[in-house]
Amino acid sequence: MTSEGARCRARDLGLAPGIFRPGVHNTITDVAGVAIGHVTLVEGDATRTGVTAILPHADNPFVERVPAGLAVINGFGKLAGATQLAELGELETPIVLTNTLAVGRAVEALVDWTLARTPDAVSVNAVVGETNDGRLNDIRNRGVTRDHVLAALDAAAPGPVAEGCVGAGTGTMAFGWKGGIGTSSRLLPEALGAWTIGALVQANYGGVLTMDGIPVGRELGKWYLKEHTDRGDADGSVMVVIATDAPLSDRNLTRLATRAMAGLARTGAAFSDGSGDYAIAFSTHPGVRRDPERRAHQAIIADWPNDRMSPLFVAAAEAVEEAVLNALTMATTIIGRDGRTGRRATGHAIDLDALRAVLKRYGR
Amino acid sequence: MTSEGARCRARDLGLAPGIFRPGVHNTITDVAGVAIGHVTLVEGDATRTGVTAILPHADNPFVERVPAGLAVINGFGKLAGATQLAELGELETPIVLTNTLAVGRAVEALVDWTLARTPDAVSVNAVVGETNDGRLNDIRNRGVTRDHVLAALDAAAPGPVAEGCVGAGTGTMAFGWKGGIGTSSRLLPEALGAWTIGALVQANYGGVLTMDGIPVGRELGKWYLKEHTDRGDADGSVMVVIATDAPLSDRNLTRLATRAMAGLARTGAAFSDGSGDYAIAFSTHPGVRRDPERRAHQAIIADWPNDRMSPLFVAAAEAVEEAVLNALTMATTIIGRDGRTGRRATGHAIDLDALRAVLKRYGR
Amino acid sequence: MTSEGARCRARDLGLAPGIFRPGVHNTITDVAGVAIGHVTLVEGDATRTGVTAILPHADNPFVERVPAGLAVINGFGKLAGATQLAELGELETPIVLTNTLAVGRAVEALVDWTLARTPDAVSVNAVVGETNDGRLNDIRNRGVTRDHVLAALDAAAPGPVAEGCVGAGTGTMAFGWKGGIGTSSRLLPEALGAWTIGALVQANYGGVLTMDGIPVGRELGKWYLKEHTDRGDADGSVMVVIATDAPLSDRNLTRLATRAMAGLARTGAAFSDGSGDYAIAFSTHPGVRRDPERRAHQAIIADWPNDRMSPLFVAAAEAVEEAVLNALTMATTIIGRDGRTGRRATGHAIDLDALRAVLKRYGR
Amino acid sequence: MTSEGARCRARDLGLAPGIFRPGVHNTITDVAGVAIGHVTLVEGDATRTGVTAILPHADNPFVERVPAGLAVINGFGKLAGATQLAELGELETPIVLTNTLAVGRAVEALVDWTLARTPDAVSVNAVVGETNDGRLNDIRNRGVTRDHVLAALDAAAPGPVAEGCVGAGTGTMAFGWKGGIGTSSRLLPEALGAWTIGALVQANYGGVLTMDGIPVGRELGKWYLKEHTDRGDADGSVMVVIATDAPLSDRNLTRLATRAMAGLARTGAAFSDGSGDYAIAFSTHPGVRRDPERRAHQAIIADWPNDRMSPLFVAAAEAVEEAVLNALTMATTIIGRDGRTGRRATGHAIDLDALRAVLKRYGR
Repeated sequence: MTSEGARCRARDLGLAPGIFRPGVHNTITDVAGVAIGHVTLVEGDATRTGVTAILPHADNPFVERVPAGLAVINGFGKLAGATQLAELGELETPIVLTNTLAVGRAVEALVDWTLARTPDAVSVNAVVGETNDGRLNDIRNRGVTRDHVLAALDAAAPGPVAEGCVGAGTGTMAFGWKGGIGTSSRLLPEALGAWTIGALVQANYGGVLTMDGIPVGRELGKWYLKEHTDRGDADGSVMVVIATDAPLSDRNLTRLATRAMAGLARTGAAFSDGSGDYAIAFSTHPGVRRDPERRAHQAIIADWPNDRMSPLFVAAAEAVEEAVLNALTMATTIIGRDGRTGRRATGHAIDLDALRAVLKRYGR
Repeated sequence: MTSEGARCRARDLGLAPGIFRPGVHNTITDVAGVAIGHVTLVEGDATRTGVTAILPHADNPFVERVPAGLAVINGFGKLAGATQLAELGELETPIVLTNTLAVGRAVEALVDWTLARTPDAVSVNAVVGETNDGRLNDIRNRGVTRDHVLAALDAAAPGPVAEGCVGAGTGTMAFGWKGGIGTSSRLLPEALGAWTIGALVQANYGGVLTMDGIPVGRELGKWYLKEHTDRGDADGSVMVVIATDAPLSDRNLTRLATRAMAGLARTGAAFSDGSGDYAIAFSTHPGVRRDPERRAHQAIIADWPNDRMSPLFVAAAEAVEEAVLNALTMATTIIGRDGRTGRRATGHAIDLDALRAVLKRYGR
Repeated sequence: MTSEGARCRARDLGLAPGIFRPGVHNTITDVAGVAIGHVTLVEGDATRTGVTAILPHADNPFVERVPAGLAVINGFGKLAGATQLAELGELETPIVLTNTLAVGRAVEALVDWTLARTPDAVSVNAVVGETNDGRLNDIRNRGVTRDHVLAALDAAAPGPVAEGCVGAGTGTMAFGWKGGIGTSSRLLPEALGAWTIGALVQANYGGVLTMDGIPVGRELGKWYLKEHTDRGDADGSVMVVIATDAPLSDRNLTRLATRAMAGLARTGAAFSDGSGDYAIAFSTHPGVRRDPERRAHQAIIADWPNDRMSPLFVAAAEAVEEAVLNALTMATTIIGRDGRTGRRATGHAIDLDALRAVLKRYGR
Repeated sequence: MTSEGARCRARDLGLAPGIFRPGVHNTITDVAGVAIGHVTLVEGDATRTGVTAILPHADNPFVERVPAGLAVINGFGKLAGATQLAELGELETPIVLTNTLAVGRAVEALVDWTLARTPDAVSVNAVVGETNDGRLNDIRNRGVTRDHVLAALDAAAPGPVAEGCVGAGTGTMAFGWKGGIGTSSRLLPEALGAWTIGALVQANYGGVLTMDGIPVGRELGKWYLKEHTDRGDADGSVMVVIATDAPLSDRNLTRLATRAMAGLARTGAAFSDGSGDYAIAFSTHPGVRRDPERRAHQAIIADWPNDRMSPLFVAAAEAVEEAVLNALTMATTIIGRDGRTGRRATGHAIDLDALRAVLKRYGR
């Protein structure tokens, strides 16, 4: 693995998509209570992978459930826990992100983690998302273990979030460059509810890279289908997680999750056949928390109406777009091994000097 | 109604989103067989509405059915025929677009039209989409009649397609400017199948107008939520129709339709609560046509594989994006009456000189 | 039209499916506030059709909206309003049932009805379901008018509900016999919430008739596919409406609607290709009503938990099953005209004496 | 574990639901090529669980893919592989059934199994279904290992299929009695296509047991909600697998899978909140097989039309119903340990003598 120059976040390059301002850290953890943990696996010359855990709050999520919604934009992926999340409209575990072939172990680990905290649990809907980092990671070798997943859960913390080649983004590629984990947030003004919306992405997809409207991919000479050959590097998938403190129903969380696709589209996503594109949204608002009392009896809950959802939709799209930009600008070059061919492979970080030159040409 | 200066298509302004080239007319009718008909209603000082009909081929579509797919991006709309289209994966009528409160009459007219051509038909799944033109049209007055719908069907023709304030786009708004009907197409290169993908949009939604990546809305000082008031003009809906000559299954047509959202997102769509955003895709390929023989017996049909869908997905998004741009640049200023308040209202066409100045500043 | 002997409800024949007891009238109107109106059209020798309206409460449903869910069991039908009902999780009009080719007019009428009551309405999601009564009704002749729909809405009343050959059930067939409208209800015991669940069906489908487990169709020598010819009389569709006074979320109403299929299955439904089988469920509980205040501001709403839904699911299935039985036992023989062939056709009511004999043989 | 008396299949008791006749073995393996493998785990006093593998054919399913559809009747379950199966309309692994907390390991094992057979595979959509056998199995102890899953795959064979307390049915309960694995099949007559439809169920749910219409649960004094307490034993889930040799599209396979609910409903299923009820259907017809050639190029495929699906729908419902009956009549009494409380628990097989007496009273 090599790393060149100082990386920075997209906003430091003048890229600030959208109309709303970010939260304090410009991370998903700006939504109070949300914690992120990474385990980064760079071992030998071929293991370039990892795990990222997203916890909605500091309590046991199996007991204190949060309402949640899921958008399956392109279902070529192995997301575990999809149908129960949609049926019950809730999360009962943290969300774990990892590589495609590690989903089984991550489910196993999340079950272990939940059973250890919940003596009477006999059914656990582990939610595990993935993208395929096999272009840089010897994915068939299965470097991620149950202990790595538990370590990511243990490492979860509020506050600043590491981005780029960390956790589940260690070996991912995006738009032909090194991708990774990115995050961003938006604060709505008082008149629109003063809610915070945060997003985290595991970016591993492709298309024609566009940064806040600027055709960076074409300017830098790298884009999907450039050679008009059928197979390019648009596949690989992207997992999006959206958190908010607004008291949304599971239906409106599903709608919020759907807006992730707008953020992805604006980055130039091809939404290719082989890219599993998913978004999960959850609410941390105490008035919608599903505690044991609420799950057993008629309850009184908070609800934000349909008619006032639009600003949240806009904010979610913006946060997702900027999260992808951060994944790219924070990622560093990684040398690994192609999981299919076994050949040495390099995931070049996008050159920030070249990028700055493009942005300058476009008036930033 | 007034109209200022000469309007032109987006490509004439240097706006050419995407990586693929358009077809001969850069219209949905570049897909051989597809025909479009408009009826434009500008009557008195308050009726500003109309009907647009899309025919997949020149035969009776009830007899010669085409496979089709539907994507409901935001279901706040009155699309008729949705569930049967999805269940059977096919169209059995033309697609008619009109205003929100005219769907009943349009269904009635499509049923009449089909019964007249099909002596033994006793069940007709009329597919009618709509957007709400009530910002310029006295929509409660119900200007569209059954005869208008039949006239649009009769008027359908291949070749060039009128855009802007025509047909179902007569009274629509987009991004705070006058919207309307737009269309565009893409040709895939030989190596990617040489297929044609065409799109037609009835643009009546909002957000932060972006044209091929350029933040036109912000540059011209008009965008959704600019004033941070809850209600802006992002609502209203958009109907997208995608045609292709590739031999796609209904499942892959559904996936193709889903990619419409990428084109819309790139125009800056807010995907607001009150915007019903739908896309229908169909295939004209003879090898997937569902004629009476095929509907009654085991058949041999053509099929384009999942693995080769990605270029079509990219092309569909591009065509949808450009179709919206055309709707805006071809629309002319319309003065009408707000359907809710009864007050005189003006839908200003986007000023092409101001737009050219913005594009120039951004290097086009 | 002829009618033979005295008809009675299924329960009077000893048919009492399920484990819960019915409400006072054993009708959907046992859910307080729900009103039903029928217009029955028996004109000349060929018009055998009608309209049935279901109102959730006595106020304007466009203003005082009720949460609702939709289950599309087999989507071969023309249900209007499906996508918005699902997206927003609510009804904003009464539900109207009629014949397949009258949906356009019924949408038109519901829009008229709503605009007349709501001066500022410019968007109306008319919910209209249908089944195809063309085996007894000259359906191509379009006997149902806008005024008939308005009359059904005007006629709506709480209390006892006419069943059999009335309203939208006038010309329908079920299992080869005369079908029609049927209704039933269930009361949950105190420990399970004391809620009422009511169902109304427009039964026009087929299969192998089973009444509370008894193979009546086979005993009486009439069933779908008896002759092993491909086309039988299982097609035609069934619309189910479920009402409850439990404070359910739209998601749990969707789940409740899904359980309608269990009731239909127990009657021997074939769920054939050509039967559009739909269920809509709504809640009348004041704590989930979506009044203007709640639609504009953060609200506090009532919620019945996932964990306590199961008894409601069982009750819904039971009510739907019994509603179908009532449609059959209350229907009378109708002579009409086949809508496709124009030939005279008779829909024979199930012979209650023969049925009693079967039930007796099976120990009832 | 104890086992009383000789068990037999439902048909030997005179229970023969439906109108079509079964195939040679009356098993899912009557569909040529389908193979079933069980691993049954009865260890110590607390492990009562296992694995059942369903292989669509004898080749590598990752290379020779079969079209498939999924119906999520109630999504309270942990089915792995759901979204990709639906998006691509195909299976690329065998289907594995096991217990709820073993899904992670089973995914891991299916990935191992696939990688071992497919040198260039870097993405595997393992399809693993489950039900919760924690009423008789110390499920928190996680008795199922990766090797057990591989052993079930190895054991897969065509021909007769063991039923009752075997494989993934070892510890399951149904309707308050011992449940398990059951299977059945139907042959369509020549005029309807001469297709075979087979079903296999992992029955672990409840309600009011009904056998071919006979209210066995009530006759034997055991049913869900008998005591009107909120929590009964209807939860637990049911997985249904349907195979056919008809050349169905993935859409029509999805529709076929949906009809599983009719079979379940006729057994008296409560479709309770806590029962994850899923059905997967696949086709073994060579004309729809997705081999590498078809996945890479435009192809010509076989297709059975919508209009002729109804008899297959009826047959699928019948086979599912009879498969559940077989699970009950073939299961033997099992003594295990409740996974939640750790208390000794007995799953009593339904008493066949008592059952015969009931059937006799009802004329069988």
